[in-house]
Amino acid sequence: MSAGWFRRRFLPGGPLPEPRPAGPRSSPVPYHRPRFLRGSGSSPSASDASRRPDSRPVRSPARGRTLPWSAGYAEIINAEKSEFNEDQAACGKLCIRRCEFGIAEDQEWLTVCPEEFLTGHYWALFDGHGGPAAAILAANTLHSCLRRQLEAVVEGMVATQPPMHLSGRSVCSSDPHFVEEKGIRAEDLVIGALENAFQECDDVIGRELEASGQVGGCTALVAVSLQGKLYVANAGDSRAILVRRDEIRVLSSEFTPETERQRIQQLAFIYPELLAGEFTRLEFPRRLKGDDLGQKVLFRDHHMNGWSYKQVEKSDLKYPLIHGQGRQARLLGTLAVSRGLGDHQLRVLDTNIQLKPFLLSIPQVTVLDVDQLVLEEEDVVVMATDGLWDVLSNEQVARLVRSFLTDNREDPHRFSELAKMLIHNTQGKDDGGTEGQVSYDDVSVFVIPLHSQDQGSGGH
Amino acid sequence: MSAGWFRRRFLPGGPLPEPRPAGPRSSPVPYHRPRFLRGSGSSPSASDASRRPDSRPVRSPARGRTLPWSAGYAEIINAEKSEFNEDQAACGKLCIRRCEFGIAEDQEWLTVCPEEFLTGHYWALFDGHGGPAAAILAANTLHSCLRRQLEAVVEGMVATQPPMHLSGRSVCSSDPHFVEEKGIRAEDLVIGALENAFQECDDVIGRELEASGQVGGCTALVAVSLQGKLYVANAGDSRAILVRRDEIRVLSSEFTPETERQRIQQLAFIYPELLAGEFTRLEFPRRLKGDDLGQKVLFRDHHMNGWSYKQVEKSDLKYPLIHGQGRQARLLGTLAVSRGLGDHQLRVLDTNIQLKPFLLSIPQVTVLDVDQLVLEEEDVVVMATDGLWDVLSNEQVARLVRSFLTDNREDPHRFSELAKMLIHNTQGKDDGGTEGQVSYDDVSVFVIPLHSQDQGSGGH
Repeated sequence: MSAGWFRRRFLPGGPLPEPRPAGPRSSPVPYHRPRFLRGSGSSPSASDASRRPDSRPVRSPARGRTLPWSAGYAEIINAEKSEFNEDQAACGKLCIRRCEFGIAEDQEWLTVCPEEFLTGHYWALFDGHGGPAAAILAANTLHSCLRRQLEAVVEGMVATQPPMHLSGRSVCSSDPHFVEEKGIRAEDLVIGALENAFQECDDVIGRELEASGQVGGCTALVAVSLQGKLYVANAGDSRAILVRRDEIRVLSSEFTPETERQRIQQLAFIYPELLAGEFTRLEFPRRLKGDDLGQKVLFRDHHMNGWSYKQVEKSDLKYPLIHGQGRQARLLGTLAVSRGLGDHQLRVLDTNIQLKPFLLSIPQVTVLDVDQLVLEEEDVVVMATDGLWDVLSNEQVARLVRSFLTDNREDPHRFSELAKMLIHNTQGKDDGGTEGQVSYDDVSVFVIPLHSQDQGSGGH
Repeated sequence: MSAGWFRRRFLPGGPLPEPRPAGPRSSPVPYHRPRFLRGSGSSPSASDASRRPDSRPVRSPARGRTLPWSAGYAEIINAEKSEFNEDQAACGKLCIRRCEFGIAEDQEWLTVCPEEFLTGHYWALFDGHGGPAAAILAANTLHSCLRRQLEAVVEGMVATQPPMHLSGRSVCSSDPHFVEEKGIRAEDLVIGALENAFQECDDVIGRELEASGQVGGCTALVAVSLQGKLYVANAGDSRAILVRRDEIRVLSSEFTPETERQRIQQLAFIYPELLAGEFTRLEFPRRLKGDDLGQKVLFRDHHMNGWSYKQVEKSDLKYPLIHGQGRQARLLGTLAVSRGLGDHQLRVLDTNIQLKPFLLSIPQVTVLDVDQLVLEEEDVVVMATDGLWDVLSNEQVARLVRSFLTDNREDPHRFSELAKMLIHNTQGKDDGGTEGQVSYDDVSVFVIPLHSQDQGSGGH
């Protein structure tokens, strides 16, 4: 991304956009469920056009199929909100090859060694909106972007400390000292690779959607195990938590118009033309009406964490940039999340006002130092889309996890069963047979047992 | 602040700046020490032009003078870094009067009741740079700005919940419901008032400095007690901590080019013209040299928390927007803080590049619910400028505080003595007689005993 990019892309007066390729459109992204669900019974097309909540099937991998670290997975489609399940999932082994640099006159070429050099694992959830296409593209693409980004820095990752120069040809003897002083560690390269991979994937999705004439966006929640650490990268409103016997640790934060209010209001302050005179960037406790004109009402602007009062002017009666509360909060009346992938063409209904300038594709990355934990067999990371967290609190999920794993010590498929049980608990049937809350959204859950990392399918 | 303000003020191509007033310049801001130091012995002009560290006098209020809540205060001037002590302090009672609204055809007027309505207390430290003028103006002005801001919302502050309409004339019966849903509490009005007061004070300082032809800026750390809560507002690198028998709680964060790297880099990404082609916004482990050209080196940009590698181009050799580490970190090679008041005219040496666009005058506000604490006599808040924290850690300060207060239970001036003792500990003489670190900076300290709030000088 170069300076000036934002203005050229989003603001009036910049150069004209590049013409679309003149050739025929590429074919639309085909709908499918995650590959690891193959052979798990009901076919997607038959089951996905679903009916009443209690008749919707919970799907999970076939019994013979093992996911990385023996992780469990389950999903359920929403109650007729959309024709397709807009959630997507992906997981697998991440094989990072080493790049070797050769030196030639005036050029630098690199050879990728054929054999893999560093192995990790990858689990990802994507919650789509405005169609399934973006989530499918993300599930097909993000791991490749990440592998490419990691391969570009793997030489630094395996060093005790990342070298100032990737090729190792230091020009300054105190380089290690500077790297040390800035506190740059190998894990910072993985964080950087995740940040760059999300951006790269967003670009790919933008090009693919444009080429196929499709639309849509998705959130992305990714867990990556590498060199004894678990990296959780999140852009959107999915959530990952660590559940242990005596601990619940939240591994991600949600990015919504409410949690990112100041960033979004500030952008509208800097570029008022993004609102095209149709919205007000100010926040009020409710949408104002004509009767409020001239009165002093509660408000806050981009620089404020607190609230103040202002005298209502006519422009304050416009529709608010961020409107509604909690799950109902919407950006420009349109979108419930403020980070994610895709949405390159999304506009406010019946206007030319773009959503994309307000959206970030950058994830927040949390690092869990698994090697530093004294692991027990019941220690798991639960990753799920917002459909789960809308009806179950972290504490409720932890309670369900602990009691299920205690009661099912011997079942070899217990993490998959646990994922299914969690989904059942979003459908109004809790384990005690009493009434629980019902999620009408798509719900997808990974349960990753940390103890398994030392066994067959894990390690590095 | 209106939209477009930033561009009009800082970017080329906007309208011309308003001409300076043609009249004679107002007289320069006179140098003085805080009023509450009067009668404390040595006169400022005689003592401030100081010599070796161990000959610098520690100053504190005269024995007969009681500060709000019997708070202690002490200060020391720097070791010949500047002619004057650039730190300033202020404290006092905050008397907030109630505004009453009258209703008239097509106009709204307000009557300020003569008697005070709500009483609070105020302690503030300002650490100046580039001359003492901004800190003196801030010490003279900020409390008035705050009182004005609080008086504008006091009606809402004393309500169980702030009303949607300040004058109480709701136009919508569900207004309380919306306020409740947004979680807006009386303390949010105080936070908003502090945020607005800092901005207002910054504007006043800008006008006064321009009128008197002076320059400079300052940090601001403010503690305000109101309705059983202590609000700590900070813009800069001073710090406040709560010290109790079993607890150290940090009540402020520092704002420096390092801690605000992403905000500062992002502004340079959005407005590259602010760097006038002289600086690079990218961060590297060290300043790059010609030998680095074409190599791949560690870097990060505004969107990254992690690090990555990039191939060095010629533009990467420019001086970095943020350079140096820790105490040496500088914004545009010039300033060690990224928030504060003043600096309206500050430019990079020998260029026309302005610092002000990168500086925020908005404080971060922390709320300590004092009424919810089971207070003991030894519970204190320690506020100090960076000169203290550069040489003493939070833990060291807490240890000194606890042992001093335990050993001096009966001394009526013990909080003032404690403030002096803390300063002595920045001068290389620790209490045990062993060598400690030496601060060559100005140092100012308030010690606020929370237990005193229920006694004579406190309450509301």
